[in-house]
Amino acid sequence: MGGPPRAVAVLRHAVRCGLRSSAQPVLAACSGGADSVALAAALAFEARDAGVPVGGVTVDHGLQPGSDVRARRTASLLAELGLDPVLVLTVDATGTGGPEAAARAARYAALAGAAGEHGARVALGHTLDDQAETVLLGLGRGSGPRSVAGMVAEREDDGVRWWRPLLGVRRATARQACADQGLPVWDDPWNADPAYTRVRLRTEVLPLLEDVLGGGVAPALARTAGQLREDLDALDAMAATELARLAGEAGDGGLPARPLGALPAALRRRVLRGWLLAAGVPDLQAVHLHAVEALVTAWRGQGRVDLPGGAGVVRASGTLVVLPPGLRRGDPGTAALEEPLP
Amino acid sequence: MGGPPRAVAVLRHAVRCGLRSSAQPVLAACSGGADSVALAAALAFEARDAGVPVGGVTVDHGLQPGSDVRARRTASLLAELGLDPVLVLTVDATGTGGPEAAARAARYAALAGAAGEHGARVALGHTLDDQAETVLLGLGRGSGPRSVAGMVAEREDDGVRWWRPLLGVRRATARQACADQGLPVWDDPWNADPAYTRVRLRTEVLPLLEDVLGGGVAPALARTAGQLREDLDALDAMAATELARLAGEAGDGGLPARPLGALPAALRRRVLRGWLLAAGVPDLQAVHLHAVEALVTAWRGQGRVDLPGGAGVVRASGTLVVLPPGLRRGDPGTAALEEPLP
Repeated sequence: MGGPPRAVAVLRHAVRCGLRSSAQPVLAACSGGADSVALAAALAFEARDAGVPVGGVTVDHGLQPGSDVRARRTASLLAELGLDPVLVLTVDATGTGGPEAAARAARYAALAGAAGEHGARVALGHTLDDQAETVLLGLGRGSGPRSVAGMVAEREDDGVRWWRPLLGVRRATARQACADQGLPVWDDPWNADPAYTRVRLRTEVLPLLEDVLGGGVAPALARTAGQLREDLDALDAMAATELARLAGEAGDGGLPARPLGALPAALRRRVLRGWLLAAGVPDLQAVHLHAVEALVTAWRGQGRVDLPGGAGVVRASGTLVVLPPGLRRGDPGTAALEEPLP
Repeated sequence: MGGPPRAVAVLRHAVRCGLRSSAQPVLAACSGGADSVALAAALAFEARDAGVPVGGVTVDHGLQPGSDVRARRTASLLAELGLDPVLVLTVDATGTGGPEAAARAARYAALAGAAGEHGARVALGHTLDDQAETVLLGLGRGSGPRSVAGMVAEREDDGVRWWRPLLGVRRATARQACADQGLPVWDDPWNADPAYTRVRLRTEVLPLLEDVLGGGVAPALARTAGQLREDLDALDAMAATELARLAGEAGDGGLPARPLGALPAALRRRVLRGWLLAAGVPDLQAVHLHAVEALVTAWRGQGRVDLPGGAGVVRASGTLVVLPPGLRRGDPGTAALEEPLP
């Protein structure tokens, strides 16, 4: 009977459902590395049956000598695979935040631009191993549960849909699929440069964890991330519902303190965060959120909580109110904001 | 002015609030190691002002030569610190699951027994570093978000209250507090034996992660665990409320399928899990939960879902029903369980 080799079948299966779920054209982002070449090949194959137009896009960061040649070679490969259109985007990757972050920001901006222009969603080649690295990175930075939840298989951001169909596929399988199909693969020297945190996580930390914990670490990290994402999505959705309800109850953009106090802390913090972000408060940190929360959970008549950007929050007649920058309690027009002690 | 050295002050501050929060006597569990000796000393000091009786307990696992001498020496130290009563518990640590797990199980059983006998809660010396190791261990095993949420500062289990006041304190601080107070500390050779997973996490993985991520990893892991715990507690509490509501709606121990389907997946799975556990289904695995969930989210007239222990779940007239072991759909008395296809 034959059929394709196992690795090739795994890759095609990984993209099939998602490809058929929407008629929107797809642009496969491809660096020329094994993961994204395997992705492009699988998408090219499945595009015929799915009846969805699939193009390819490669980015020339201009950071390594010969990167233009590399980009053209990748574009030729994408065209040979049958992708159409095939785009080469040249970006200026000299932004702030270190070369890794700058290149990433420039790449995503260029991809988003191309997606907008072609009305396409962007398929990215992140694998289960990338997911494990992302989770470990988020965990080690302590940036909260959401960062541990890793990358999402499909999400929309500023009107662009990012699709990561390979989050359940091992990196080794993607590489095998390329070998099975005789596809040339480019190994970016940056992917082996220990100057990059992610490279050291991949080449040092994860193998050591595998050794210590007896294997299966990357799938375990990815599995936990998936469950976590489901949990956090549920909480975010419930908090959005609560925020709409409570804001409607108070009117005038305020939030009633008493029902906020009755919410579980995990929901209350999300409601307050969503409320303050909607009010345009920038750079909200945990310390601000806690001070605002104390107006609900530890109310002892305290005054205005100052927020970044010059705005503030007061509790007045049982309602939390955002004061725009400049306006202070006691100013004319804020008499209603004086609340007696409990 | 003076006051105690910084490390000693940190330890005392860590136990103060929790000690005063309840009049229940406390038993400080002490191995003779730095963490638990520092804990015992802090509790002994704070007990005076708090007016709470604090005793000490040490466990002789009988696994190392001279462990009885070690236990008596620890008991003497606890008595010198002013703890009363001081108990030495001898346990048989030859149970199943490897020496680490067997010793742990025997120790907790003995501590629970002593707690019950003295009507006390048990204070344990787990530090922030232990928490980080626990989180990493849970993450690497992929046993789900709850295992990543780490240990809880205070929780009741089968009537015993376990209290871990040092989860925010670094191990190095506990050791310093012992040194500052001239307290003898015993370094268990097991704590340096690389045969133990936790020891390798402590001595190899975490230092490498610190190096790769630029420091602060243990506090970051502990911080994320804390936020995660809050999120998961909120979901668990909401699921319990939903379960009570839906069970009341269906009556007869069933659950209505349609409102279950309207819940976010994270809540629906928790409700189903709680319902099946309450019905006495043992060893519930993810695969069973998913099959039961499919009766709600992917209903196409499928039959009975078999569960461990011989029980099963069917969907009948829009309601999920647990069939006790032995009873099958189509048996006499189960006619009402036949539901037409949608």
